[in-house]
Parts: sequence; structure tokens; C-alpha cells
Amino acid sequence: MIKVGIVGGTGYTGVELLRLLAQHPQVQLIAITSRAEAGTPVSSMFPSLRRRLDLKFADPANADLQSCDVVFFATPNGVAMAQAPALLDAGVRVIDLAADFRIKDVAEWERWYGMSHASPEWVAKAVYGLPEHDRDGISKARLVANPGCYPTAVQLGFMPLVEAGLVDLDQLIADAKSGVSGAGRKAEVGALFSEAADNFKAYGVPGHRHLPEIQQGLSSMAAQPVGLTFVPHLTPMIRGIHATLYARIKSEADFQQIFEERYSGEAFVDVLPPGSHPDTRSVRAANVCRIALHRPQQGKVLVVLSVIDNLVKGAAGQAVQNMNIMFGLPETEGLWQLAVLP
Amino acid sequence: MIKVGIVGGTGYTGVELLRLLAQHPQVQLIAITSRAEAGTPVSSMFPSLRRRLDLKFADPANADLQSCDVVFFATPNGVAMAQAPALLDAGVRVIDLAADFRIKDVAEWERWYGMSHASPEWVAKAVYGLPEHDRDGISKARLVANPGCYPTAVQLGFMPLVEAGLVDLDQLIADAKSGVSGAGRKAEVGALFSEAADNFKAYGVPGHRHLPEIQQGLSSMAAQPVGLTFVPHLTPMIRGIHATLYARIKSEADFQQIFEERYSGEAFVDVLPPGSHPDTRSVRAANVCRIALHRPQQGKVLVVLSVIDNLVKGAAGQAVQNMNIMFGLPETEGLWQLAVLP
Amino acid sequence: MIKVGIVGGTGYTGVELLRLLAQHPQVQLIAITSRAEAGTPVSSMFPSLRRRLDLKFADPANADLQSCDVVFFATPNGVAMAQAPALLDAGVRVIDLAADFRIKDVAEWERWYGMSHASPEWVAKAVYGLPEHDRDGISKARLVANPGCYPTAVQLGFMPLVEAGLVDLDQLIADAKSGVSGAGRKAEVGALFSEAADNFKAYGVPGHRHLPEIQQGLSSMAAQPVGLTFVPHLTPMIRGIHATLYARIKSEADFQQIFEERYSGEAFVDVLPPGSHPDTRSVRAANVCRIALHRPQQGKVLVVLSVIDNLVKGAAGQAVQNMNIMFGLPETEGLWQLAVLP
Amino acid sequence: MIKVGIVGGTGYTGVELLRLLAQHPQVQLIAITSRAEAGTPVSSMFPSLRRRLDLKFADPANADLQSCDVVFFATPNGVAMAQAPALLDAGVRVIDLAADFRIKDVAEWERWYGMSHASPEWVAKAVYGLPEHDRDGISKARLVANPGCYPTAVQLGFMPLVEAGLVDLDQLIADAKSGVSGAGRKAEVGALFSEAADNFKAYGVPGHRHLPEIQQGLSSMAAQPVGLTFVPHLTPMIRGIHATLYARIKSEADFQQIFEERYSGEAFVDVLPPGSHPDTRSVRAANVCRIALHRPQQGKVLVVLSVIDNLVKGAAGQAVQNMNIMFGLPETEGLWQLAVLP
Repeated sequence: MIKVGIVGGTGYTGVELLRLLAQHPQVQLIAITSRAEAGTPVSSMFPSLRRRLDLKFADPANADLQSCDVVFFATPNGVAMAQAPALLDAGVRVIDLAADFRIKDVAEWERWYGMSHASPEWVAKAVYGLPEHDRDGISKARLVANPGCYPTAVQLGFMPLVEAGLVDLDQLIADAKSGVSGAGRKAEVGALFSEAADNFKAYGVPGHRHLPEIQQGLSSMAAQPVGLTFVPHLTPMIRGIHATLYARIKSEADFQQIFEERYSGEAFVDVLPPGSHPDTRSVRAANVCRIALHRPQQGKVLVVLSVIDNLVKGAAGQAVQNMNIMFGLPETEGLWQLAVLP
Repeated sequence: MIKVGIVGGTGYTGVELLRLLAQHPQVQLIAITSRAEAGTPVSSMFPSLRRRLDLKFADPANADLQSCDVVFFATPNGVAMAQAPALLDAGVRVIDLAADFRIKDVAEWERWYGMSHASPEWVAKAVYGLPEHDRDGISKARLVANPGCYPTAVQLGFMPLVEAGLVDLDQLIADAKSGVSGAGRKAEVGALFSEAADNFKAYGVPGHRHLPEIQQGLSSMAAQPVGLTFVPHLTPMIRGIHATLYARIKSEADFQQIFEERYSGEAFVDVLPPGSHPDTRSVRAANVCRIALHRPQQGKVLVVLSVIDNLVKGAAGQAVQNMNIMFGLPETEGLWQLAVLP
Repeated sequence: MIKVGIVGGTGYTGVELLRLLAQHPQVQLIAITSRAEAGTPVSSMFPSLRRRLDLKFADPANADLQSCDVVFFATPNGVAMAQAPALLDAGVRVIDLAADFRIKDVAEWERWYGMSHASPEWVAKAVYGLPEHDRDGISKARLVANPGCYPTAVQLGFMPLVEAGLVDLDQLIADAKSGVSGAGRKAEVGALFSEAADNFKAYGVPGHRHLPEIQQGLSSMAAQPVGLTFVPHLTPMIRGIHATLYARIKSEADFQQIFEERYSGEAFVDVLPPGSHPDTRSVRAANVCRIALHRPQQGKVLVVLSVIDNLVKGAAGQAVQNMNIMFGLPETEGLWQLAVLP
Repeated sequence: MIKVGIVGGTGYTGVELLRLLAQHPQVQLIAITSRAEAGTPVSSMFPSLRRRLDLKFADPANADLQSCDVVFFATPNGVAMAQAPALLDAGVRVIDLAADFRIKDVAEWERWYGMSHASPEWVAKAVYGLPEHDRDGISKARLVANPGCYPTAVQLGFMPLVEAGLVDLDQLIADAKSGVSGAGRKAEVGALFSEAADNFKAYGVPGHRHLPEIQQGLSSMAAQPVGLTFVPHLTPMIRGIHATLYARIKSEADFQQIFEERYSGEAFVDVLPPGSHPDTRSVRAANVCRIALHRPQQGKVLVVLSVIDNLVKGAAGQAVQNMNIMFGLPETEGLWQLAVLP
């Protein structure tokens, strides 16, 4: 059994981690910390866990995280970079679901995240946890930077094209739509039901923090810089990301076959038949990315549709997938739930 | 392994059965029938099942249902009463998720359902499948009439009071609210998104088909006729039933304790602490009923709040629970998924 | 032209007042105050008002409210009782959309609202602004206490029965369902989209602040104390209240006719034909209450269905209706918009 | 008073026309036809119109449409081309809200719509009713082809750029998201609440019927053929279209100023300040298009955000705007309702 700790279990990625880990046959949950909720039974806050998870939130000061095999950080940006190094030095492996270790260029990170980085040396050692791209690196990693939700959907959608150099790398466009849970469980007016329901809007068009992360990933896949326009939108649904990707074709190829081959061994990436339109509910609560390709009017533009559940393949599920890889378990262990439809 | 067949797998209870049975460790899915979709892979209609269920819809005429151990009917009312008897005579056990065998008084059934009954003899032999009320009967049944969604939520909420005779049985009120999936996957204007979203309404106030079913159940528990006012409402959510129950107190008692004791051994009924307000998402996609009690202003009216997922504890999950009981499996086998929150 | 001021225009009742008043042919908007947003153009916060309302939020300290004919308070509870008296003393009429002046029994008010009252003398002078009940009082009032949303729906639904003494006044039940905008435009976790969407729950069952307000109103109509069980629920829609009311019949009568006669002269109460099920969208954005009666199974329980838009007939629209009455305008002036369906 | 008839008033554009026309000070509604609902009071089907519209659906065979000044067709594609010519020949003006007269190339139309055209001669005479593009033509038209919803949002968003020749006309991309009411009030499984709620998907990527309409419009504005990739999406909201438009900059310019000047005299197009993100609710139930411009990272891609209510500026509202122009009324007459927010 893997002994697991969670720092910051009161947000949506936290409770989703709890849902997955409480059902994982190889995991023993040791501690969940929350300064604000210390002493509260976890199932008081999240009744969905009643009678299934007998754990209280622990004060971070007292929690015995050092005896864990792995600790997940489901905290706001800036927490893991301060607290993870001590755990890492004690031999505990760490998976950070926030952004602290995702961007290799620390100055770039500091520009986008508006704080100075507390642990640049661990940024250098961290492995970016997109299993379909760097499974080997993850298997040896002590610190995994779990990808963002948009970056997961966009990178998996573009990866086969970018790796094969088949499209114009200067002109990629990612028009992405997210459910509101992506904004987290913070009390903010913009995420109120009466603001977000029956409504649709773009946001962050001048620059969203996931842009440099996606660009870093795609550039690494392409082995050259890529130019990307990224427009995120807020969608009146709880879970789900739908990325609509546009690329200009540079070299002709059987694109459908290229995607199917690229992902043929992947348990969690599903390339749909030609002509398909994946909907986000087909991945609701499941650790899957479904992808479909289109070439409208047989023209020069390839359209890739990529859907994930932002809280699962876009956060907690991918984190558990990374844990499975780090500990030599079958990658699907504890992650084989079917999507909930409708 | 239990060999399972499903008649009518294209509706919401059908796909929910598939989700649960495809993950059930003791089940082998043999056949799913659909006249309209014969030959179509199930996962083409429900992409949530892609790569996890390799089965095509079979023509009812050809499907080998007689070699199954149990067949679920997830069909419109009137189908099972015509087709189940032949299977039952061949030794196949049957669980009907429709209403054909729920009402013991055949004339009453015919009045509410507007057709004549094809198999009154099997009505007499059928066991009403509310495990928390008649587990023994179910364990020996060849034919189980799976309860309706409203009847499940309402009966579990009233049962401890009615059994103990603590409330006025003449004046029960059940104000119930259902998600739209309760209306099924039929193309009807009233269930369109643009009709049902951002909207709320009562329906069937003059008389809903679940009324006689609930009255039969409560009367059986009380061993005398009960008087019930039942008002169902359509709520802009996909899954979930919230029943708000009102009863006038006849005899004082520690009602909280009575509920806790009545359900103390039940895996799938969760009595919340005093003062709680269960929400439907705390049971989303899970086979659970959560119940809370209130006595506003310490007056004479007891308010019981009872929530279920109409497709799980209110339909497919309860059907699998019944199957587990019928085949001597642990009652929670394959039904231990945690609720999906948010 | 009536010169109008608004104190506290940044919440949902505030912006709804602005929508209605900006289209009112007899109104000149003089000032809208907000300490936090002083200097911000109103249409920056609410782009729906762009190019139609050229006004900035004013600092309450500088706003010239004393030159207004009438000032609306769309503020949290406790503000109007402190600030309205000075305006009233200066001859300005006041309509308070909060609860400060609704409860005549000041001690009772203090118990439910948890603060001591700053202006009991104005409580005594205030007129409760339910036009269908006390149009004359309103026409002469200097201070109108605009009813709460639940109280409007519940009182209009029960009024004809209670006035005529036809039902058991000890056993009234109001099961009410509200859209989330009823919770206001405050940043609170419980009102987040990801908490409230695709979800349904009761709240405040032990005691909701609208209970004493409803009881006071019904008792006044009945000329005797009434016993009421009131259970509010949170519904995943933006606007709308649906009250399902239960009353035991004491004296037989033609209830449909009694309702039709009671409301025959009312522009804003619509009694539907027998057998109807009003939906909340039929009053969305309109100043109307629609009511339908049912007597299930011809039994002893009368069921009244009453729907309003909580922000219009339940708040801002009723406030404008009261203003029209106070200033001798036709009651429908500026309030004749049709509901937005779908 | 303009005497108005409506053919086909039972869909969403029909009831929206009724809402607007019933409040239009210069309109007298003469007849609304519906074969299926002949004899039914309009307000029985749409209770939002109760006590405000005293009209029954008329049988098309009996309705006196020839005495109308103008007849709106809110019918499925193919109806107006058969029935409008007789009215036009009788001197009645016609506004078709369907697609029958939108595409000048009849063969192209027949290819996309899968039927042969019954009245090519009236296609030639019809004026495409986008007032901001061809107000003069509309003012003299006997037959106006009211634009589709997507084409309105996309053309208004691209028009200033395309007219001025500032962007690469070969590489336009329109990623558009629509509320579900765009699918109409037809009983179809895909538009059920339980299918469309809490879900997001693209559709029609291989080719949507609005593509040739948009291309025809933009090509006309550019005076040369344009290349467009158009991807529509279904969004879980009732009303609203959000078009996210991408164009590669060919010539530098002050794009914000170009938009503001182009639309400076337009009552129904609102160019937002730089940096804005319009949301669809800011135009809910209002006849407005709001537009914002972005140039992410100061790169070569211009992003235009354009929102409308698909039933108002995208259908019924624009039709009334066209009627106002055709009859010499102020363009805003009867169309000055503020958006309903929240």
C-alpha cells in the first residue's frame, strides 16, 4: 500500500483526489491538511464521502506528511514551492497539482504568476507530468509538476501533428471552453451561479497563465518554438474542457492514422472515428481524453476537437496516473471508472 | 459469473445499467436488445462506454436471452408484462425497471396505466424490490418489480415513521422534485433544454402514476391505508430527486434515533446528523439515499428530506442491488462508487 | 417626472431596479450610490445598461438624495433603518427592498435578524407594500416596506383562502423553491455555479427569516394567528420562485371562482384555468404572479401553485409598482414588459 | 398602424416575434397561422402572453394574410419559398426568418438545403436583411431574407476588417457557440435537457448551412471571395451566440478606432472598450450585438468577440428592425428593451 498525504484538500481538485484515492486499491490515505478546517471531518465538508472516508482535516503544522510515500499538493500557486522541498529532502515524492514547477524558465514563471520563485532548483529537477509525452521521466521523478487543465487538452490534441511537423507551427490556434469548476472553490462574484449560468464569455484573451505552459510543451514536442493564439472561455457547465484546435496543414498525410498510431498504446487517450464530435459528458468523471479530427471542405485547415474532464484528466486523475507510474503500478489502477452519462 | 441480458438498452436507465454492470466484477454481459438499433455498437450510441464495452445491440428476435441467469427490462411500461413470462418460464430471473409488476391490484394498475395487463399471474408472484423493506422476499424472488424513482425516495423517507405508527397516516404530504432525466430519453418538447432549463414547474398534480405505488408501499408498511398528497416537480438538473416530506406527529419520540436505528445496518441509506440539508449532488451517480430530519419551531410537523439519484438508487443501481441479493452476492458488489461532487 | 435615487445599486435587486426605472416613462434617475464603486460608471459594472444609462455610482456621502422625490434602498438589512429616517424627515419618500421595516414586532425582528433596530418609530409608520392587500395604505405611505420574495409568492397564493376562512389555519404548509439570484450578488461558496448547478437542496428548514414575515401577513389577512410550516429550497435556475402551498379544506366552496374574483381587478396577478401548472419562465423578467389551484383526488387538501420572478414581483418590480401607487400613476406604468420565454 | 401577419408562430422565433410585436406601438397583429394548432389561443401555448395577446392560431387556409401590410415567415426552410410569392404578388411585403431567400446562388442553396427551390425569381429580388450592411436596400425591399443567427454575429464581427481589407481574407476562422434555442422547438433527442445540459460539443464541423451564407456576405463586403473555417458549438444555455473570430493582420491600423467609426451611427451595435470580454447575458432578450477586439501578445492575430441573442438580433429582433426600416419607422421603435441581467 502506498501511503499518501494531501496538502490542501478543500478545493475541487482536492475532493476529486479524495474520490479517486478513496477508491484506489493500492492507496492508504494518511493525512489531509487544511489550516482553516483543521479538526473538521472531511465528510462534513463533502457529504459525498460519508461512511467511506474516516479522516479529519489536519493542521499542516502537525500532519505527519514525512512518513508518506507521496504527497499531493492541491493548493493555490505558491504553496508547494515553499513546502515541498522539505518533504522532497526527506525522501517523500511530491506531485504538485498547482503551477509552481511547470515552467522551466523561472523568470517567465515569475512574470506570469506575479511572485518570485522560492525553489528554482526544484523547478529544474521537476518532471512535467504528461504521461503520454514523458512516461519515462515521470517513472523516475521525485517531483512531478502535474499539467494544467487547458494544457492537457490542448497538448494532447496538437501533439501528433506537432511532433510530426505536419502543420504550420507559427499559426496554431486553441479556442478552449471550460466548465466553471476550473475556477476553483473560491468565493468570487464571477463564479456565482447567477453570473455564470445561462451565459457564455471569453476571458483572459490578452494573456492567460496556461499560455506559456502550452507553448513550452508544444515547443518541446516540436523541438522548435511555436506560435500559439489561445482563447479560453467560461461555459455554463460544472466539469469539462472542450478544446477546438486549428492548424494550417503544411504537409499532406493521413492525419487520422497518425493520431491513431500515436495513441494506440494509450489507455487514456481515445481517438474517435472520422467525423465524430466528442462531447464533454462522454468523459465526465473519467480519466480520458477523447479526440476527433476534421478537415472542413477538404481545405488547408485541420480542426482537432479534444475533450477532457478538467478535474480528472485535467487534474486529479492525471495526478493519480502519474502516481501509478512513479510507483510502478499498472497505469489504470484505481482510474478505470466509466464516464457518468447523462 | 452471472450471465446478464438487458432488454431495451437505449434509454437512460439502460445506459446507467450498462455503466454499473460493465464495472461489476461478477457480471458477464451477454446481450442487449434494441429493435431500432440492432447491429449498432452500444458504444457508438454512448461514447462513454468506448473501449470498455464491446457489444452490439441485438435484435430482440435473435437475442439469446434464455441462456442468461437474469434479464433486466429497461423498457417502456407494457413490454415486460408481454415478454418476461416466457423467460421466467424458462427459468431466467427477471428484474423489471418499468412499472408492469409494481401494483398488486391489477385493476388499479390498468386504470393508472391505461392498458390491460397481459400477465396478472406474474403480478401476483412478483416481489417489490425495495431491499430495505423486503430483503428476504427479494432473495427468493424469480421476478422483481424494481421500484419507481419517486417511490424509492418517498418510501425510504417515510418508512421508519409509518412502520412505528408515530405520525398521522391520513395527512402525509410528499413534495418531490426530480431532475429531467426522470422523463427518459424520449424526444418530447417538454423535456427540451430550452423548455426545462432555468425553469421550474409542478406537473401531474391531479394524479401521477407513482401515487398508487407509494400508497401501496406505505400502506403495507403501516398495515393500514394511508392518505397521501403527492406533488412532483420538474427541476433543471439532470439527475437527482429531492423529496420533502411532511407528517403530523401523533406520538412523541426521538425521531432521529428511530431513523438511525431503522437504517443502522443499511449500506445504502445514510441518516444525516440533526440539522442537515442533504443535496442531490451528494448522491450523484451513487447508489445511496441520504435522509435528514427536521422539526421546525419544535412544532407538530416533522419534515423529512430524502435525496437519491433517480437513475441509480431510483432505478439501475437499485436493480443491481436487487440482483446482488437474488444471487447471494454481497449487496454492495459493483455498487460502491462514490458520488461525483461537484 | 419623478426624481428617483437608489441607495446600493450593485446587487441583483439594484440592477433590476435600474433596468425597470431606466425604461419607466415618468422617472428621472438622479443618483445611485455605492461606497465601494463610487465613480464607476454603472454600465461598466452592468454592460446590459451600456448607452442607455449614463450615470456613475456616487459616494453615499456626496449623493444628493434629499432632492429626490423617492429613494429606493436596495441594501443589505440594517442600512435603511440607519439612513432612511433622515431622508424621510426631509420629506423624501422611501421604499426599502430589505427587511428593516417589514416586521411590526420589533423584538421579533431583532430576534430573527440578530441586530437591534435603529428606528422602531419608523417601523410603526411603515406600510407593508403588498399592493393586492393594502393598496390604500401604500398610496398614502411615506415609507413602504417592500415584501420579501418568498412572502410575496406565498401570501398571494394563500390570501383568498385565508381571508375567506375556508381552510384550516393551523396547518398551512409552504414548500417554496427559489432561483439562486435570491441569494444576492455576494461572493459566497454556497452560491457558486459549481455548488448550485445540477443540484437541489432545502435550506433554513429550522427557521428562515421570511417565516415571521409570512406569518404576520397571513395572520393579518385572517385576523387571527396562523400556523405555517415553511421550507425553502435552492433551485438551479437564476430567477424564479415556485411556491407549492398545501391547505386542509375546512369549508367547501368553489375555490377557483374565489381566486378569480379576488384577483379580478389585479393587473399583476393571473389566475390560471383549472388544471394548470404554471412554470417560472412564464413570469421571467415580468411583474406578474401566476397562480393555479388543484384538489388532488378530490380530497381534503388544496394545492396552490404560485410563481413569480423573485427579482421583479418579488423585489424590484413590486417596488416600482408601489412607487406608481404612491405617486398616483397608473399601476402598470413602466411595468408592462412581457415575460421572456424561452 | 402596420397590419402584421405571422406564418408559423409555434417555434421559438415565432414566440419571440410575438413578444416583440405585442409591445410594438405601431403594430396591429392580424393573424398568426399554425396548421397543427389552429383554434388554440396563442396564450394557451405560451402563457407568458396571457392577458396581453388575445389571438388564436388560425388555419393557414383561412387566414386573411393578404390584407396585411407585412407577413413574417417563422417557418421551417422550404415553406416561405412556396407560400410567399402569392402574398408578394398581392402587394404584401414579406420578411422570411428562414433560409429560403438568403443565398443568391440557387444551385448552391439547393446543394446545402437538399431541396429544389420553388421560387428562384424571388431569390433574385430578395434583399438580405443585415441593416448595418444594406439599410438602403432593405428600405426599398418587398421581400427581405432575414439573416441567420450565426451569420449575424460573424458578419458584424468581421465586417469592418473585411470592408477595409486589413486582414488576410484567405484564413478567417469563426469559432461560434450557440445556446440550445438555436436548434428550435422541435422534439429531438439531441436537444433534450438531459443531453445538452452540463455538456459542450461542436457539431456540423464538416459543413454547416450557415457557412455559404456567411461566405456570401463576407465576399460581398470584401468584393472578392473569402476563405472561412466555421465551427459551431452547442452550449448549455438557452439564448445567446458568442462568436470568437480570428483573423491574420495584413495591414497595421488602429483597429479599435476602425470598429468604433464603422458602427458609430448604429443603434444596435455596441463596440466595447479595449480589453473587454462581452458576455451573452449582456444582450439577453435585447436587440444588440456587442463587440470587443483583442490582439493577444501584440502578435499578428486579431481576435474579435461578438455576442448576440440568437432569438433577437439573430432572428426576431432583426426582423422587426427590418420591418421598421421597410415602413419608414425609427429603427429602434419597439426594440428598445434592455437586456435581462442576471
